[in-house]
Amino acid sequence: MSYRIESLEKLIDMFHKLPSIGQKSAQRLAYYILHQDKEYIKTLTDTIFTLKDKIKECPICCNYTETIPCPICASEKRDKSVICVVSELNDLSAIERTNDYKGVYHVLHGIISPLEGKTIDKLRIQELIHRLENSKVNEVILAINPSMDGELTMQYLARIVRQYGIKVTRIASGIPIGADIELADEATLARALNYRVEIE
Amino acid sequence: MSYRIESLEKLIDMFHKLPSIGQKSAQRLAYYILHQDKEYIKTLTDTIFTLKDKIKECPICCNYTETIPCPICASEKRDKSVICVVSELNDLSAIERTNDYKGVYHVLHGIISPLEGKTIDKLRIQELIHRLENSKVNEVILAINPSMDGELTMQYLARIVRQYGIKVTRIASGIPIGADIELADEATLARALNYRVEIE
Repeated sequence: MSYRIESLEKLIDMFHKLPSIGQKSAQRLAYYILHQDKEYIKTLTDTIFTLKDKIKECPICCNYTETIPCPICASEKRDKSVICVVSELNDLSAIERTNDYKGVYHVLHGIISPLEGKTIDKLRIQELIHRLENSKVNEVILAINPSMDGELTMQYLARIVRQYGIKVTRIASGIPIGADIELADEATLARALNYRVEIE
Repeated sequence: MSYRIESLEKLIDMFHKLPSIGQKSAQRLAYYILHQDKEYIKTLTDTIFTLKDKIKECPICCNYTETIPCPICASEKRDKSVICVVSELNDLSAIERTNDYKGVYHVLHGIISPLEGKTIDKLRIQELIHRLENSKVNEVILAINPSMDGELTMQYLARIVRQYGIKVTRIASGIPIGADIELADEATLARALNYRVEIE
């Protein structure tokens, strides 16, 4: 029999169910919170609790935002004729950090993954089609992780976009900058060879 | 410039400050919560918020508990004349899981660690002295991690306990059951040799 404190065990259980939190981490987190003052705990719970009230999906690009439309769709500096399709906010943030992309986005909220129950109707594909039909789009860039499900998703989307006579591209796969060719996996190296570019 | 959603960033920052949560984990946790329904979020925040109201320190052993005194101090089956001193609830739980110890505990809530600002007055040492003076104690077992600070804490406590003419012991250090002598570190092996026991 181990010594159980019910309310503490309940919190440990809840933390343990969070992604990438093991049993030991969950315990450490719960003890940490137990040692904090009331003010900290109030701020933490308020922040979690109000999150969903404050954050909406942008009606244009489906990205999470506190303002409607989102700052990117609202910006006059962004080229609305180029749409970069990403699966998640993380990927959008990563592309924004490059400071190199001046078009707009479309966030699918996942990729097609029959095994995980992610079917086409659960992604924001209808919203993308609506944009293709109702605004002037010159190019759709697919920036989806080149996994098996990702490839399937890109093929599916490419077929749709082409029906509207719109150019569709995908971001390049290849050897990362600074990486060793020797250490690259076979699939990446094969892709890098197939998609080689002429030196000008 | 990266795309920032203020309330999401705030939660990511709060998660990032938790122990053993890196930036990526903090992001993953915040996104996970963003994807949950209202009911889940309400349960999570309620559990965190009420934790400190429900959990007190036992006035006898200073362990965390929902009932006063704690179930161990309240149990008639436990031998009140043997006190096992631990630094944290985790250690108490570990010893309880062995199902082998029938005495009671005293939880210090830390060990003496001048570098981390853990001075003697921040631990529950006065409460331990109060027990030694006011109840019949035959033995105090020190079950504190044998780190440098742990050794210091045990030496300090042993001196106090001996002043009351009470037997003071420490749990054995040595080669873990099932471990390889070959792979043991020098300090553990030296300890195991010094504390060798006669085979009966």
